Amino acid sequence: MPGFEKGRVRRILSHGFSAIIAVSGPNFFYLTGKDIKSFERSLFIAATRDECLIVAPKLEEERVSDIRCGEMILYSDGEDPFPRLSAELRAMGVKGKDVIALDPEMKIDLFFKLSQSLSDFNLVNGKEAILIERMKKDDYELESIGKAASILDELFKEAESLISEGVTEAEIMMKLSFLSQQLGSDAPKSLSVQSGPNTAVPHHEYSSRKIKKGDIVLLDLVVSYEGYNADLTRVFSLGRPDAEIERAYEAVREALEAGIAGVKVGIPAGDLDFVVREKLKERGLEKQFTHRTGHGIGIDIHELPNVAPHSKDVIEERSVFTIEPGVYFPNKFGVRLEVDVVALKGRAEILGQYPLELKVI
Amino acid sequence: MPGFEKGRVRRILSHGFSAIIAVSGPNFFYLTGKDIKSFERSLFIAATRDECLIVAPKLEEERVSDIRCGEMILYSDGEDPFPRLSAELRAMGVKGKDVIALDPEMKIDLFFKLSQSLSDFNLVNGKEAILIERMKKDDYELESIGKAASILDELFKEAESLISEGVTEAEIMMKLSFLSQQLGSDAPKSLSVQSGPNTAVPHHEYSSRKIKKGDIVLLDLVVSYEGYNADLTRVFSLGRPDAEIERAYEAVREALEAGIAGVKVGIPAGDLDFVVREKLKERGLEKQFTHRTGHGIGIDIHELPNVAPHSKDVIEERSVFTIEPGVYFPNKFGVRLEVDVVALKGRAEILGQYPLELKVI
Repeated sequence: MPGFEKGRVRRILSHGFSAIIAVSGPNFFYLTGKDIKSFERSLFIAATRDECLIVAPKLEEERVSDIRCGEMILYSDGEDPFPRLSAELRAMGVKGKDVIALDPEMKIDLFFKLSQSLSDFNLVNGKEAILIERMKKDDYELESIGKAASILDELFKEAESLISEGVTEAEIMMKLSFLSQQLGSDAPKSLSVQSGPNTAVPHHEYSSRKIKKGDIVLLDLVVSYEGYNADLTRVFSLGRPDAEIERAYEAVREALEAGIAGVKVGIPAGDLDFVVREKLKERGLEKQFTHRTGHGIGIDIHELPNVAPHSKDVIEERSVFTIEPGVYFPNKFGVRLEVDVVALKGRAEILGQYPLELKVI
Repeated sequence: MPGFEKGRVRRILSHGFSAIIAVSGPNFFYLTGKDIKSFERSLFIAATRDECLIVAPKLEEERVSDIRCGEMILYSDGEDPFPRLSAELRAMGVKGKDVIALDPEMKIDLFFKLSQSLSDFNLVNGKEAILIERMKKDDYELESIGKAASILDELFKEAESLISEGVTEAEIMMKLSFLSQQLGSDAPKSLSVQSGPNTAVPHHEYSSRKIKKGDIVLLDLVVSYEGYNADLTRVFSLGRPDAEIERAYEAVREALEAGIAGVKVGIPAGDLDFVVREKLKERGLEKQFTHRTGHGIGIDIHELPNVAPHSKDVIEERSVFTIEPGVYFPNKFGVRLEVDVVALKGRAEILGQYPLELKVI
């Protein structure tokens, strides 16, 4: 896992900031390679082009010291690290009125404290700059997402033997959860196992419903590997499915293929959403497609680009995002297929190899 | 699980607010009984003494509609729910300059949007009022924490047979994780399995280290049941431990018992910390006790009261918190014991029954 990422800090600052403050969470991980849960105590870095300061509870000293970003303010319970902060930032070359980008993950509790102690600086939401830079994945990041996708391939293979009459959605979820960790994933993020009419609810997770003959079973699985997520969806059928389900499946499959073919560096993500949506419209299914086409993925499960109607997010080279058309018939069934693609010059690379056919068990 | 909790809203507002805005997360769960992950889309409630408004993505309609708090603003991707908000709050009786308590879990991204659309109101951090009220657990909450503690009892029992030569910390963690879900817990929160010298790092989680004869193994386990956490720590030894470890264990055990005996409704939590710390000081171990004595627990793993040196948090009746003295000898070993207690008039009730003795396997 990489350490302090000065290059990433500089790319974000190039959007017009003198410094960035990132709190423990995804953006802190992006800048330091460290995933630290800090519970209720403040833990953050402040970085300029050339320098970096860590503010952390003394309790976390061992875990933050190898970030080696530069200065540290370690505080004990009862101590208040904020009074020193303004002077430290000035020593790092940040001047009054300079614009400091704040991590959008920062909670208001810390923000109100920083507003007081850093009242001579201009604190703004760094969300857009940070998320645009996070879109452009480097080799290490692409490999990590690819590894997560290959773990999902294994989970889908395992599901072929887990799906059977009488087994519950929750049991399948737990077995896949266990396997994903054996395969080296981080703690599993979200393993949705939906069967029968539960497939009609896009965000259903899992329940104690028992699988029945003739059910379709939709697996929407997210795991992460070294902090990077993959998010794939496949559909299985226990016995031959209804003709109605098969028709819906083929329409979704066609829309997905059209989406993959439509990936192009530099276009607005809304154009890609349009291609997929039009394909379902040709089949009269546009009203059944109740959500966006996809979302960027990486350190977060949902990041840029937002592949949605009218989205102006530009598909950057080396951005990774899902394409996941779905159609839903309330109280009956739903079908969704989801791939993760890397936008490269002239082509889309697909992460994960598990077949896109409806798998009849 | 209870639904919309008007009584809890009113108790928080009695701290001097006209309304409260809570975002999906622990405080939203406290007020609605609903644990909804909303990813990057805004989802929140705004509640006054008598009325309640939900703002949620249309995609989440099914999951928020049974909160039945009153009005709903459901917005599609691309729509902006904020312009309507000010008028809706006025219709609920909130007047200009009125003080609105914000959920401290709110991120600055939403805060900056609210600051604009609600610029005629006085938005403040509701943290203190919310956390003070959350301290006072009702019967349902105490039962849920008690159930989580009894699941931990089972995990400690299971650990007796899992701890053996050559097994890794990670393997034990995964097996306990699986069992905790079979026993009806929510997705496991934090299952730390530390062995040998890893016990010297208070926040170590688990690793691929193999357990060896003569190791102590410290299990610091957190699981939740219907959204409420228990957090207990016990120590095992594979074979008879060193005399040095036994002495440290007895000192920690004594400090723990002194802490339990010192629980009293109405005292500052700092007084309780003092009692525990003094007991370790008598044994010359005060420098090895590098953290606070404990923390409140409930919907969050760490909430009020903060049982730390000089803490002025009042131990409220029906508050639940940990008492967890520990001593650490860097690169050698550490010992910590942790119980969850309910402060009642004249006594402390202990949740979880697993014995406090060092368990030699």
